Amino acid sequence: MLKNLLSNIQTPTDLRLLDEAQLPQLAQELRDFIIDIVSVKEGHLGASLGVVELTIALHYVFNTPEDLLIWDVGHQAYGHKILTGRRENFHTNRQLNGISGFPKRSESEYDAFGVGHSSTSISAALGMALASNLKGDFEKQHIAVIGDASIASGMAFEGLNHAGVTNANLLVILNDNAIGIDPSVGALKNYLTAVKEGKNPKQNNMIKSLNFNYSGPIDGNDIFAVTKELKRLQKIKGPKFLHVITIKGKGLQQAEENQVQYHAPGKFDRITGDIIPKSEENLPPKYQDVFGLTILDLAQKNQKIVGITPAMPTGSSLKFMMEALPERAFDVGIAEQHAVTLAAGMATQGMMVFCNIYSTFLQRAYDQVIHDVALQNLPVIFCLDRAGLVGEDGATHHGVFDIAYLRCIPNLIIYAPTNEIALQNIFYTAQLGLEHPIAIRYPRGRGIIKNWKENHFGQYQKIEIGKAYTIKEGSEIAVLSNGTIGNNVNLALNELGNPEAIAHYDFPFVKPLDENTLHQLFKKFKFIITIEDGTIIGGFGSAILEFAAQNNYNNNIKTLGIPDKFIEQGTINELQQCCEIDVKTLKSLFLSYINK
Amino acid sequence: MLKNLLSNIQTPTDLRLLDEAQLPQLAQELRDFIIDIVSVKEGHLGASLGVVELTIALHYVFNTPEDLLIWDVGHQAYGHKILTGRRENFHTNRQLNGISGFPKRSESEYDAFGVGHSSTSISAALGMALASNLKGDFEKQHIAVIGDASIASGMAFEGLNHAGVTNANLLVILNDNAIGIDPSVGALKNYLTAVKEGKNPKQNNMIKSLNFNYSGPIDGNDIFAVTKELKRLQKIKGPKFLHVITIKGKGLQQAEENQVQYHAPGKFDRITGDIIPKSEENLPPKYQDVFGLTILDLAQKNQKIVGITPAMPTGSSLKFMMEALPERAFDVGIAEQHAVTLAAGMATQGMMVFCNIYSTFLQRAYDQVIHDVALQNLPVIFCLDRAGLVGEDGATHHGVFDIAYLRCIPNLIIYAPTNEIALQNIFYTAQLGLEHPIAIRYPRGRGIIKNWKENHFGQYQKIEIGKAYTIKEGSEIAVLSNGTIGNNVNLALNELGNPEAIAHYDFPFVKPLDENTLHQLFKKFKFIITIEDGTIIGGFGSAILEFAAQNNYNNNIKTLGIPDKFIEQGTINELQQCCEIDVKTLKSLFLSYINK
Repeated sequence: MLKNLLSNIQTPTDLRLLDEAQLPQLAQELRDFIIDIVSVKEGHLGASLGVVELTIALHYVFNTPEDLLIWDVGHQAYGHKILTGRRENFHTNRQLNGISGFPKRSESEYDAFGVGHSSTSISAALGMALASNLKGDFEKQHIAVIGDASIASGMAFEGLNHAGVTNANLLVILNDNAIGIDPSVGALKNYLTAVKEGKNPKQNNMIKSLNFNYSGPIDGNDIFAVTKELKRLQKIKGPKFLHVITIKGKGLQQAEENQVQYHAPGKFDRITGDIIPKSEENLPPKYQDVFGLTILDLAQKNQKIVGITPAMPTGSSLKFMMEALPERAFDVGIAEQHAVTLAAGMATQGMMVFCNIYSTFLQRAYDQVIHDVALQNLPVIFCLDRAGLVGEDGATHHGVFDIAYLRCIPNLIIYAPTNEIALQNIFYTAQLGLEHPIAIRYPRGRGIIKNWKENHFGQYQKIEIGKAYTIKEGSEIAVLSNGTIGNNVNLALNELGNPEAIAHYDFPFVKPLDENTLHQLFKKFKFIITIEDGTIIGGFGSAILEFAAQNNYNNNIKTLGIPDKFIEQGTINELQQCCEIDVKTLKSLFLSYINK
Repeated sequence: MLKNLLSNIQTPTDLRLLDEAQLPQLAQELRDFIIDIVSVKEGHLGASLGVVELTIALHYVFNTPEDLLIWDVGHQAYGHKILTGRRENFHTNRQLNGISGFPKRSESEYDAFGVGHSSTSISAALGMALASNLKGDFEKQHIAVIGDASIASGMAFEGLNHAGVTNANLLVILNDNAIGIDPSVGALKNYLTAVKEGKNPKQNNMIKSLNFNYSGPIDGNDIFAVTKELKRLQKIKGPKFLHVITIKGKGLQQAEENQVQYHAPGKFDRITGDIIPKSEENLPPKYQDVFGLTILDLAQKNQKIVGITPAMPTGSSLKFMMEALPERAFDVGIAEQHAVTLAAGMATQGMMVFCNIYSTFLQRAYDQVIHDVALQNLPVIFCLDRAGLVGEDGATHHGVFDIAYLRCIPNLIIYAPTNEIALQNIFYTAQLGLEHPIAIRYPRGRGIIKNWKENHFGQYQKIEIGKAYTIKEGSEIAVLSNGTIGNNVNLALNELGNPEAIAHYDFPFVKPLDENTLHQLFKKFKFIITIEDGTIIGGFGSAILEFAAQNNYNNNIKTLGIPDKFIEQGTINELQQCCEIDVKTLKSLFLSYINK
């Protein structure tokens, strides 16, 4: 088979010149192209492989970008990106200054809406469709392609509930592959499975109850079936719902068979599919595993411990506890709001709930943290994985707002460890029973202690709430760091030969602050530098500024952290450079002060 | 009929001693008691009247507080409060140091969960039920009573979706009166109506699709029917769902007939039901009406304007536009997440969207503000009504976090007017087209300009983004106020004879700050005071501290605002006193500085 179709498609206009009979060949080429690039450059694989046919059919049948197409979640949109002008740049996917791993409005007119977080597509597409109606355009179609994990989130239900009482030209396509990043869960999933298996009579249709024109389920990997059905639906006005069955990882045997692993497999052999193992020898542990292993160990000793994850058993490593203690570890699906209030409900009954939510996704449950947990002062233990800059997932996923949005909440303790030991110790401390809820934030990626598991795991020490630590004494300038970014300070100071002028203090508690230590520091040092892996606005540095103002200190204070702009994708080190909190920039900064 | 049953019930234990045949009399007494008190003391009326029979039946059949009962939303819980030890204190409802208008854990062991915001009950009750299972208690019942407006919110769906795959002893009671504060909306509402009218065959049951044991609909105002069904359900394990039809305002004819008005009618004649009119002559307008009237006026001139409210047409006064321009004003139900992303979708198509959400409820859509609006820099116009202290609704409803949680978001403009004129002018300015999204926060209650409507309405002036204003010159101390709390500063200074030492500046923009003016002020004044109707932590004052630090100013700065604790209910003036931002306290403060 000649690979000549894909290379001639710059935009969907070119695609629409093909005979329908050529589409299977194009599907094969597109699939090969995705595999070629992702096997080398890494990225999200399985979701995009599963929707190759659907992607082609959508652009073939509909008049994109006039018709508006939204992918939910965006990591299924690689094929879409390749067919819409970004084939030649696709190798820069998820890299600094490259293309985003998710649809992005500023990147292409074909990306109708940016979708990094899930379950937004129905609301967005409905908004567009209602706008079209108001503009008198009753022909334009507005299409949301949403996965079965995403549609189970409450926000998607809200969109369906509204859409069903409108006359919007909205087509919701349920891409049902029975898996998100991890396998889908919940009653709706069971219902959809029954529908697929023909066990539910058609007339008992939940979607029809919401006043949608329902069709399906159809085989979403059969390009002719999909094209035919889309052409039929194209002519129908109002809210429509197409239930499409696809196979995640379709076309790469190993990806089909190991769907969780091949969601984002890293580098792999493009022929055999074998994942190319990264040498993990002698590497420090991932913070997520410090969570997963510690929580399991603690739970085996403390019957009150419960774990909750909204759809991230693998990413959070709660999977270890789910496997060993399934009755006490809950994957609730993409339902952050529910996860937090479920935790609150459990906490009222004396359970020690570790509610693990990525920092960026806790934004989805902000009200529940305030209203259901903090206001009632329930001692829920929030574990905020992926806090700070997360790297290649980019602007939609950086967990940089949490300190600012949590700090204003009364009753809440906020803690960020500098390393694996501190992290396990705060988990240990929290489950001993605190008087308050606590948010424990820790980053994506690995820690700094190579032999953590062998030498430290399980050797718990209780942490004093609100206590700061001296890392290095000094005479002129005090650097106050919060969390693992403090290791950059350590490295910078080490590389400068540990200059006598600069002291370094670890303030793991953003709240409550160690006011005793702060008084000492503000009296001793004229110049204070704060650094955090979060927004400068409203963050740890601002807490220090507030302390200084309240106590009438007039020291000079410089606050380092994430500046007031959205940070795009790149390696974490590259992004730290952009934010001037990497080791190299810190060295220069410190040097400039020493030489003053 | 002797009123002797209710007065002998201190707790549900006493209630359970009654013969079932006595329950109708008790219902009448309870209803009379609620009317007696609320007619004089004000509060939420209609919801609690509707559930009198259900309330009695629940406490009669179930073993509260061992069985756990959650009211969603809590304003239907007056009968519950009266039957559970708070009859004699009920006249202090919603007052400073009185009982809360909502269930509150710290107030009574019968209040299993605090519910001021809606749609949390299923998640909370499920958490409790799963905890009971883990503790080996398989008998305890966990009951969520949720209204039909509340259950349409996404969070409730998330709870149902999880519950359906558990063996939790969860009883969800849908209190279906077809109305929240305003009439319910959406496809689910239409579905429920069809069920009630017998138009939907029982086998086509959405709730059954989610694997619940469904029963109903039954007449929720028939106490024997309810008691009988609860007794049957009490014996059934696992997730159960009872669909109950009630009439909001039941027992007071006018409340039944005018359900929106009698949700919280203010004072009324307890016999006739007539609302006792408040003298509104010569009062300044409510800020909500400044919104409602201005937005309608602007929308009549600008075809691009759209209005959105999540279930608050009356409270936001969007009702004026909904009546006059129904195709461009949307009530999407209790669905803040959807409301914000719907707005974002519309904004991509060039609409000028005024998305009106109470400050406290925008917490429900925080991620959508960041991820769907600000990240894509879509010029959505957020109108945050009920910002700041809201008075009698208390801790669950104060809109005091918004400045802190919004300020860290890039691209977002944050504005708070000092008065009605500034408010209408910022609406006017926003719809001319900004480059960024904007959040406009304004308080509950009335403005300060009595003749606003006659003398100012419609006389729009464009506001310069980021500009601060001099209210009063001075020599020693600069007071920087944000929003309407600045009027307290004005009053305090006026009452002090406008002391020469103190200058006053209005900074309506929290972001972007007027840095030019700030530089002038920091150079001129050694001492700066900031004041805002929001949390001191992370708020406007912190923005000023950050500015000072970045520019190496060492002025003394005092930040006034809401302290780091949850503020309970009371009049706004009482609560301002608690927070030391009322006129009287400000006078003392200013005086102390002048006399230094």
